[in-house]
Amino acid sequence: MSVPDPVVVGVDYGTLSGRAVVVRVGDGAELGSAVHEYAHAVLTEALPDGTPLGVDWALQVPSDYIDVLRHAVPAAIEAAGVDPARVIGIAADFTACTMVPTLADGTPLSELPQYAGRPHAYIKLWKHHAAQGQADRINELAARRGEAWLPRYGGLISSEWEFAKGLQLLEEDPEIYGAMRHWVEAADWIVWQLTGEYVRNACTAGYKGILQDGQYPSAEFLAELNPDFATFVADKLDHPIGQLGARAGSLTAQAAAWTGLPEGIAVAVGNVDAHVTAAAGDALRPGQMVAIMGTSTCHVMNGSELREVPGMCGVVDGGIVAGLWGYEAGQSGVGDIFGHFVSRHVPADYVAAAQAAGISVHEHLTRLAAAQPIGAHGLIALDWHSGNRSVLVDHELSGVLVGETLATKPEDIYRALIEATAFGTRTIIETFAKAGVPAEELIISGGLAKNTMLMQIYSDVTRLPLSVITSEQGPALGSAIHAAVAAGAYPDVPAAAAVMGRVARNVYTPDEAAAAAYDELFAEYTTLHDYFGRGANKVMRRLRAIQRAATAKVEATA
Amino acid sequence: MSVPDPVVVGVDYGTLSGRAVVVRVGDGAELGSAVHEYAHAVLTEALPDGTPLGVDWALQVPSDYIDVLRHAVPAAIEAAGVDPARVIGIAADFTACTMVPTLADGTPLSELPQYAGRPHAYIKLWKHHAAQGQADRINELAARRGEAWLPRYGGLISSEWEFAKGLQLLEEDPEIYGAMRHWVEAADWIVWQLTGEYVRNACTAGYKGILQDGQYPSAEFLAELNPDFATFVADKLDHPIGQLGARAGSLTAQAAAWTGLPEGIAVAVGNVDAHVTAAAGDALRPGQMVAIMGTSTCHVMNGSELREVPGMCGVVDGGIVAGLWGYEAGQSGVGDIFGHFVSRHVPADYVAAAQAAGISVHEHLTRLAAAQPIGAHGLIALDWHSGNRSVLVDHELSGVLVGETLATKPEDIYRALIEATAFGTRTIIETFAKAGVPAEELIISGGLAKNTMLMQIYSDVTRLPLSVITSEQGPALGSAIHAAVAAGAYPDVPAAAAVMGRVARNVYTPDEAAAAAYDELFAEYTTLHDYFGRGANKVMRRLRAIQRAATAKVEATA
Repeated sequence: MSVPDPVVVGVDYGTLSGRAVVVRVGDGAELGSAVHEYAHAVLTEALPDGTPLGVDWALQVPSDYIDVLRHAVPAAIEAAGVDPARVIGIAADFTACTMVPTLADGTPLSELPQYAGRPHAYIKLWKHHAAQGQADRINELAARRGEAWLPRYGGLISSEWEFAKGLQLLEEDPEIYGAMRHWVEAADWIVWQLTGEYVRNACTAGYKGILQDGQYPSAEFLAELNPDFATFVADKLDHPIGQLGARAGSLTAQAAAWTGLPEGIAVAVGNVDAHVTAAAGDALRPGQMVAIMGTSTCHVMNGSELREVPGMCGVVDGGIVAGLWGYEAGQSGVGDIFGHFVSRHVPADYVAAAQAAGISVHEHLTRLAAAQPIGAHGLIALDWHSGNRSVLVDHELSGVLVGETLATKPEDIYRALIEATAFGTRTIIETFAKAGVPAEELIISGGLAKNTMLMQIYSDVTRLPLSVITSEQGPALGSAIHAAVAAGAYPDVPAAAAVMGRVARNVYTPDEAAAAAYDELFAEYTTLHDYFGRGANKVMRRLRAIQRAATAKVEATA
Repeated sequence: MSVPDPVVVGVDYGTLSGRAVVVRVGDGAELGSAVHEYAHAVLTEALPDGTPLGVDWALQVPSDYIDVLRHAVPAAIEAAGVDPARVIGIAADFTACTMVPTLADGTPLSELPQYAGRPHAYIKLWKHHAAQGQADRINELAARRGEAWLPRYGGLISSEWEFAKGLQLLEEDPEIYGAMRHWVEAADWIVWQLTGEYVRNACTAGYKGILQDGQYPSAEFLAELNPDFATFVADKLDHPIGQLGARAGSLTAQAAAWTGLPEGIAVAVGNVDAHVTAAAGDALRPGQMVAIMGTSTCHVMNGSELREVPGMCGVVDGGIVAGLWGYEAGQSGVGDIFGHFVSRHVPADYVAAAQAAGISVHEHLTRLAAAQPIGAHGLIALDWHSGNRSVLVDHELSGVLVGETLATKPEDIYRALIEATAFGTRTIIETFAKAGVPAEELIISGGLAKNTMLMQIYSDVTRLPLSVITSEQGPALGSAIHAAVAAGAYPDVPAAAAVMGRVARNVYTPDEAAAAAYDELFAEYTTLHDYFGRGANKVMRRLRAIQRAATAKVEATA
């Protein structure tokens, strides 16, 4: 069945909302979009019924994801002004590693009344960091046993991933673990809701699920972690893999009713928000590092060779596009840090000045900070408020600010935080280059691309040209590109990306004088990075332990 | 001439204002007081004519001090409702080291029209920190030559003191240096204005002027610093010394007209705000450490023996009271840091909540912070926003905050900053104890004594009982006590202090469980203190250098 001037729908599931975009298959034009915010946002303090959560927990509620299908997709179609009959495919990308514990039929355990008050029955969002103890044990054991997969993850796996979160579930709530049949990436769970079929996508299975060369960690390894964990892969995880851009199935009548789209259209295999964005930027060639900058930053880059990069999140064959090794790195906190600063550290007179100027507080601080010469604030920050993913892979790390005086102004710290995230990016790029995976271009996506001061700082600090994905919804466009391939409109993802991708090349280029000035500050950043991050002073880890003990004591008394 | 029911006036010159208090000689009752704020406050950005100042400058304007005599003294007399004829003496204490360059007759150079636009003609306030380069050279040379006076100042003299500030003046503006006949402590300058006679007080001459065993640093030493500095002592500094509590002279007709007090009454030798407070707390015995906690904290304690304490500000024979060795230590920033936090880091919703509750933002933050278990904030701060006086004597040091996460709240940081200043105090106490000068009691004066959470933290962290000077104007009361002695009403200062002092003993005592919890955090503080403060990572010094270079470049272009 051929449709004239076909369109596709990409749905991007973020941390706080999902957005749908309607894209024309012939040229990638974005015809309309809509956003739906999750009613429950992120649960960090308590479950909906009031059950309190521990430190570092971050949960979500599955019905919020379905609501995106029910509201954002029809709204995007309406905004685009297209006949739904023109839609030939839909694809979704998701935050990762975000995990849903389900029954055999995909029902999330948190939807069962008997488990509504059990934290472990809920979806563990990517930034749920309470499984650090489990991640530590996995890393320690894998290093001791010399597991072959460990170097594929930079030598350390994250507390955010499938095994650490799964082990926490087993050990803290065995009953829920026992009731769980599948431990499902949210990216795959939403595809399951769209198609009625469970397909594990190659991207998250590789990056988050430790699937390498067709193998998961062995039952022997798992048993040594915890005897009851020995059958975790066989019982909860293992399932057929779908390649990126492949057709996972067809839209069910139920999902057609939710979305208003035609039943039976192509649904692509699930994907991750970061990885799918490379397609939106037509940035699938080796040396093109895509940085998706939002609350956190994910870096994805293809390479033609397999290399072991210390502290990368992972390298997966076909993890970004078939036929190349997909490398991933990440910074756990970026926009989150700036947002935290604006909401918790900026005094009323700044807010009033921003309002008077009719601009956001972010813009106000940026204008003030942009007027400063490099180094005039006298500050160095470490961008670890949300831990450090690459290259240290340690979520017990925390933020540092050195150099504050009584003359320090809010814009000084704001700029120092922006610079710290740029130094974090440079640390990643240098680590990749040293391992034989050099980056030659940074392709930026996400809301932070609008901040021209920030972008120039990144170009100066990294000495790389910056290209910008001009779509306001890079991941959703990337998903739409995958939907077009799944629907058969293009032979493969690179071919679709070349036509449908949206990027402005070399928008920012490094200024040598600025780059030299940043070299001095970067040297200070590196010294502090290594001091606090590589074991010389484990004060951050101890402070977390003291914090947990102090909080636990109060909870025990309460 | 005998006056029935005599009173005395104490005048305390602080950083932003001067306060006068009228005190009854017979029992120390405070009958009335008044404050006058300096019209020019502290000049840190520019002179009154707009001439810009460099980084770390802090100047004042001498007429502001005279205005305190003209306004605060008569207002205090009026508030007390006493006949001025009952006043038998007046005394003043001052911030130190605050230096006035004058002509032979005491006229400040900044009051000469031809020098009104010259920064070096102005009064250098205690917290003028732009002479660090000169202090470094003085320290380096004194260490190399093995100057006998160096250990009397903890091994390092401060950029705040007479020689460093004087050398900066010589080297940066030789013409002003040449025009200057006297380099006068503000404490002595104000006495000069009251009596028409210049007397150098033993306290500042010893602590700030390096007068030890009757000798200043030698001409050979000074010549090696700079040949033109060889005659600094002889030409600018040397002058007869007055002992604390002695009569410097009699109130002149001019000063009587300013103040409304009787001409010819006793004027005591000048004193320093911190040292004079020991008398107000009747805390003149060895082991009684007085902490005057305001924008900064000064610690003063008498000892019966001469000991060399690393990083103390100084030890001076009779520096606090005749017959004992007076020890001084200090924390450069305390209340300043909390004030900076409240004005630059607290968001509008906190300010609104405080207003709604009818309390100050400080009180609001304190209430929130007081509810936390120790260590629950997960933070460690270094209290060096204004440098570190004791025990590191390095004004190039700056603030540090370790452990911030996206969950960190303003009250968390506020509490961590308070704890950091308590850890700073403990560091001083431990250093004194190790050197053989143990403290057995802390006697607190100053506005921060009102914060009961802060006081309990100090008691827990130091494991010492805290007594509180109940006078709201400890230094002014101390000055009044000295005025009574100068007027002959008591034989000596301890005798006067025993009658006129005001202190509540053991208001706070340490809680052992809390003290043990703080031990853990103090260990982290100490590790960071030594890392950043003792040379392992001189990042703070380098950041200041980068900052100065960046600022200078802009000024050169402008």
